[in-house]
Amino acid sequence: MEIVDLGVLCSGIKENKYGLALARCKGNVAAVFTKNSIKSASVLVCQENVSNGKIEGLIVNSGCANAFTGEKGYEDAKEMCKIAAKIFNCSEKKIAIASTGVIGKFLDMEWIRKKVKEVYHDLGKSYEHAEKFAKAIVTTDRFIKKASSEKASISAVAKGAGMIAPNMATMLCFIFTSASFESGELYEMLKEAVDESFNKLVVDGDTSTNDTVLLVALNKEKVQKDVFCDELKKVCKSIAYQIAKDGEGSTRTFTVKVTGAESKEEAERVAKAIASSLLVKTAIFGRDPNWGRIVAAVGYSTKVDEKISIAFSSGKSGEEVYVVVDGKITGIEREAKKVMEENEHFEIVVDLNKGNCESFAIGCDLSYDYVKINSAYTT
Amino acid sequence: MEIVDLGVLCSGIKENKYGLALARCKGNVAAVFTKNSIKSASVLVCQENVSNGKIEGLIVNSGCANAFTGEKGYEDAKEMCKIAAKIFNCSEKKIAIASTGVIGKFLDMEWIRKKVKEVYHDLGKSYEHAEKFAKAIVTTDRFIKKASSEKASISAVAKGAGMIAPNMATMLCFIFTSASFESGELYEMLKEAVDESFNKLVVDGDTSTNDTVLLVALNKEKVQKDVFCDELKKVCKSIAYQIAKDGEGSTRTFTVKVTGAESKEEAERVAKAIASSLLVKTAIFGRDPNWGRIVAAVGYSTKVDEKISIAFSSGKSGEEVYVVVDGKITGIEREAKKVMEENEHFEIVVDLNKGNCESFAIGCDLSYDYVKINSAYTT
Repeated sequence: MEIVDLGVLCSGIKENKYGLALARCKGNVAAVFTKNSIKSASVLVCQENVSNGKIEGLIVNSGCANAFTGEKGYEDAKEMCKIAAKIFNCSEKKIAIASTGVIGKFLDMEWIRKKVKEVYHDLGKSYEHAEKFAKAIVTTDRFIKKASSEKASISAVAKGAGMIAPNMATMLCFIFTSASFESGELYEMLKEAVDESFNKLVVDGDTSTNDTVLLVALNKEKVQKDVFCDELKKVCKSIAYQIAKDGEGSTRTFTVKVTGAESKEEAERVAKAIASSLLVKTAIFGRDPNWGRIVAAVGYSTKVDEKISIAFSSGKSGEEVYVVVDGKITGIEREAKKVMEENEHFEIVVDLNKGNCESFAIGCDLSYDYVKINSAYTT
Repeated sequence: MEIVDLGVLCSGIKENKYGLALARCKGNVAAVFTKNSIKSASVLVCQENVSNGKIEGLIVNSGCANAFTGEKGYEDAKEMCKIAAKIFNCSEKKIAIASTGVIGKFLDMEWIRKKVKEVYHDLGKSYEHAEKFAKAIVTTDRFIKKASSEKASISAVAKGAGMIAPNMATMLCFIFTSASFESGELYEMLKEAVDESFNKLVVDGDTSTNDTVLLVALNKEKVQKDVFCDELKKVCKSIAYQIAKDGEGSTRTFTVKVTGAESKEEAERVAKAIASSLLVKTAIFGRDPNWGRIVAAVGYSTKVDEKISIAFSSGKSGEEVYVVVDGKITGIEREAKKVMEENEHFEIVVDLNKGNCESFAIGCDLSYDYVKINSAYTT
């Protein structure tokens, strides 16, 4: 299901590194933003506007983050809202705004003023329009991220590849639904879904100034709340996996499942330490079941004795290849290597053997291309 | 000054990935070990032996970390000490031991038993002997790390390249001095020196199971304590910079100086966040003064407004190139780029403009070769 199927009018334009997108979407709204203490002007303005609980339209630009741009940046973001408000014939307070791109540069307002007219005249409800919108919001992405649920009438489109970390770095995700919910309810459900998806993602440990996940309820039909909640989580998880897959230069994605922890926090801390370890990430790029590096990451993220178990798995139950069981080495690294070679996405399962709590993290490998992309992406 | 100049008899052997080294050094001793909760058997045995405050000899192997090897690993480490004790004709409790290499493999005790005789018969006091010792303890190092102080009669030899992080990952450093100090004094001085050097290093954020910094006082002369303290710090700092320089595949090293913080802890946290950021590290590999990524790292490591200042500097006072002053962009990135191009080691200076505290971190860039080295270094 595309966002246009829900009645969202949209379009977008991309010229070189710069993009501009519009969406006409009248409804209740909730959003989750970056936890970085330095927030893009777009995030600041969007926070204000979304706090009213209702929007009528959305304006997004890519190529310039409008972050660390002081008062001028703030005024530019306000002006972007004004421009969109004029087009959509509503208050500028009813416009949601998002930006992604380079930090510390001012927006090219002249370009935006000129292009917004083109995008406006092109607004429409075809799949091509949805694709134009999606393409306009990307930066270094290798593919467009989309997910939907027919059951709960949800459709989401997102961008995000590098700078992804717990607390969702440089990612923009726009989720639309025809369901009816108040903004307070939307916020609670969104927060929970984000925590179980984007906040479990680790690509490079950096957190951007611009992260935005927006949920708009178009209030056209009734959907049961628990069904909606579940489907929203699935949609967010799907997008999170797609972002991991597109982790700049990544060739493999993986889930680290940590069980047997004393608390959920401990399990999450260990899972994230493993998923963040450069040595683990480069070993995975080399398809090397180097569990010694996993052991090291466990050891520096929590207090354990040597009684842990470690498996590599395709993700299907029963297909776990245990390289270490209760601290004993099994010597079947060759089979574990096969798991990494044969599955584009696989699981690393770690049992701490201390308690009954568990959690997970989503990661991707570290390749030559990560270095290439990020050393060439210039200010 | 080489360790042999202090009267340390030593030698070593290297065959493929495996190395073995011996040193005859009678004196008072202190050591600092890894903070990883999973410690190599060598670390555990060394901790016990060093706790007596006196040693007579040292045995080191490379290629196998003897970590995550359970009781057998522990017995192997004890046996290594026994072998060395027999050679040096002392109690096995008077032997210091260290290992570096792959985790989760058992030591090849047969090889060690055979080779230890060769190394023993080759013990000597020439520069070639010191070099054999140094070469025997390395793994992926591109060069040998050495530093000394004539003033305090200190000579140090070390290995370390990848897996370096705050809390000193996979590094072994052996420091010898003819000075006379009790082991308690040695420990206090060593801890302070390590905190101002190795614990400020960030290469990839991983912490190994095997880190060991050993300080042996041969008790042959009096050196004033404050002089010794200063010189020991200088020696440790020099080794730390050499390790950063050898950070697997690195082409640039840098110091992040954070000033204007509310506490030393805040300054250190921010400095380490910047030095650890993959986006900052890859930007430096690309010689790109991408201060936006520095801003992002500041923002996710502490609470700041936008009034910060950022400079790139050769390290010489007065040569700071400010790209941001009190939150205002100066637009002279080109000059900042030159600093990165022209200096193998440079400084990133960040003023948080909040308080009067400062600290620093030492880092290196992230290159293609980091990925190559670590994806190919197999279990």
